[in-house]
Amino acid sequence: MSTQPLIDVDIHHEIRSLRDLVPYLPDQWKRYLTDYGWVPERAIPFNQIRKETKYRMDTRPADGSTPGSSYELLKEQLLDKYDTRYGVLTGWFYEATVCKGWYEFAAARASAYNDYTVEHWLDRDKRLLGSITIPREPEAAVREIDRMAAHPQMKQVMLPISDFAWGDPYYHPIFAAAHRHGLPIAMHLSAIITAQGGDFLRYYVAWRSLHPQAYMTQTISLITNGVFDKFPGLQVSLVEGGFEWVPFMMHRMDSAYKALRQETPWVKRMPSDYFRDNLRFTTQPWDDLNAEQFMSVIGLMESEDMILYASDYPHWDFDAPNRTLPAKIPAPLRQKIMYQNARDFLKLS
Amino acid sequence: MSTQPLIDVDIHHEIRSLRDLVPYLPDQWKRYLTDYGWVPERAIPFNQIRKETKYRMDTRPADGSTPGSSYELLKEQLLDKYDTRYGVLTGWFYEATVCKGWYEFAAARASAYNDYTVEHWLDRDKRLLGSITIPREPEAAVREIDRMAAHPQMKQVMLPISDFAWGDPYYHPIFAAAHRHGLPIAMHLSAIITAQGGDFLRYYVAWRSLHPQAYMTQTISLITNGVFDKFPGLQVSLVEGGFEWVPFMMHRMDSAYKALRQETPWVKRMPSDYFRDNLRFTTQPWDDLNAEQFMSVIGLMESEDMILYASDYPHWDFDAPNRTLPAKIPAPLRQKIMYQNARDFLKLS
Repeated sequence: MSTQPLIDVDIHHEIRSLRDLVPYLPDQWKRYLTDYGWVPERAIPFNQIRKETKYRMDTRPADGSTPGSSYELLKEQLLDKYDTRYGVLTGWFYEATVCKGWYEFAAARASAYNDYTVEHWLDRDKRLLGSITIPREPEAAVREIDRMAAHPQMKQVMLPISDFAWGDPYYHPIFAAAHRHGLPIAMHLSAIITAQGGDFLRYYVAWRSLHPQAYMTQTISLITNGVFDKFPGLQVSLVEGGFEWVPFMMHRMDSAYKALRQETPWVKRMPSDYFRDNLRFTTQPWDDLNAEQFMSVIGLMESEDMILYASDYPHWDFDAPNRTLPAKIPAPLRQKIMYQNARDFLKLS
Repeated sequence: MSTQPLIDVDIHHEIRSLRDLVPYLPDQWKRYLTDYGWVPERAIPFNQIRKETKYRMDTRPADGSTPGSSYELLKEQLLDKYDTRYGVLTGWFYEATVCKGWYEFAAARASAYNDYTVEHWLDRDKRLLGSITIPREPEAAVREIDRMAAHPQMKQVMLPISDFAWGDPYYHPIFAAAHRHGLPIAMHLSAIITAQGGDFLRYYVAWRSLHPQAYMTQTISLITNGVFDKFPGLQVSLVEGGFEWVPFMMHRMDSAYKALRQETPWVKRMPSDYFRDNLRFTTQPWDDLNAEQFMSVIGLMESEDMILYASDYPHWDFDAPNRTLPAKIPAPLRQKIMYQNARDFLKLS
């Protein structure tokens, strides 16, 4: 339908249930799913109203299983419908990574999930690219990155954004491993997001409006802890966190850095330089900017390289590639956002 | 020196020590300060490096007491030096208001602090305007607002921004009282700010970059809880939290509201309408925007009425009135920001 070649960096392939992972788990952990009735972590605040509406209703397979769990539907509704050159599977990564305390089970589940993704998805379509899901515990995370990095369709390492900051030195071995393999990092909102101060804002409009805070925290944490000084060239995409706040944060961090940089001498460049060189942001959910407003934001960023197209298929707030960007933006910028910026980020040839 | 008439909405008059409040306290509480050695709450994260640098060094009185505690210096360095028509004292309000648990002491300290402000500051200069400090507990807060509202120089109610959200229905009696007296609300960062998720980012550059999150949380909380529907015409200024993020939040909230507004039917208008009609923001700390960038932000706000000048005297990151706004912004907009918007907000005749 559309003739705009595109790369979609946020496609949530779904498992039908945790039982899909059973074939890939060691016996010890299989029983957690088959016999003991493992209870997943609680979902996001507004789930009281979203029970049946997390998904586009047409993404539920005919057999009634979980929306987004069918490759055939994904192929029909997304890959073939649009000129999708590559689609990056981001999936369902929160549970394994943020799993509180159950370190060994988390590591086993991350491995199982990666193997499931390869066999059920990547092996079926060369347009699909994978994200390496890892457990939060750094030593096990590094093992998993080392195990999966050689797969030709695994193109990034996935980190959920939750209630801790990834820039902390505790997590630097994870960035070192990604950097060693030449893999970029993608960060994506996870289930557990609270507002600044830990307050709980009940409603969807509140939750969606505040969740970019969690992304801001990560950018500040990465830069002030010197992650991009330690691992030059490492790039991190912040998926589904918006981009209109980015110029604000670039200016804010620059002015704070000018005011008192003696506290962080390991940060060698202006914070906005790391934003432009090391950080990427995605389009979905599109905040209803018209062309003029969007071009103002691009102007404030002083870069056309920082935004990547994302659809968020199969979720209900899916943004179709032919309807995301306003009609009246310059064609070269459109091409960068829909295709080239993601191609560079993912190091596709 | 400067001939730009101005209203400064953020002047921190300082007490020399808690003992300045003793004359205004009931006997029961006097002893907490004179005999028992009350320990104030711990200050902001970056105080490890700022011990002597919270203040402009030239604001320390000759007798060596606390910087900012001298009316004479304030008069010389701020009121007379610039064409200051009005200066709003925001002072030192955190301790009394966010004081954890000690409800009765908090109420007594808020009252004592208001009486101290009247006698030591407002009575000495008609250019000085006061902010009613309140305890957090709503019933006592309403009593204090009712007690102070009649004072002709008390022009707003002061709420600290801390680790809870003021839009919660629990606090609506405070907004009702301010609304009944025709007083606007000012909110200002307090000592206790954590990042989204409760993480602790250690450095000044991180702290300053993340503290607008706390302001975002308040705007979301006020709007989604229907404060401006319940109290039409009530205005709230968000002091020292920046403004460049505001258009982002207007667009973000509008798109979220369009997507799922059935959860919050008491919110009658588009969120951006409340921003433009009910919320105000201040200039300090200025994020190094040049004229072109600043005009882009104003364009994205679609309003010239939302920004008020603030100096933050006597703090080290003070922004002088003649050096805050870029030189090349249109004179009518400059006049609004330096004077008229604050005049309207404070309802000055």
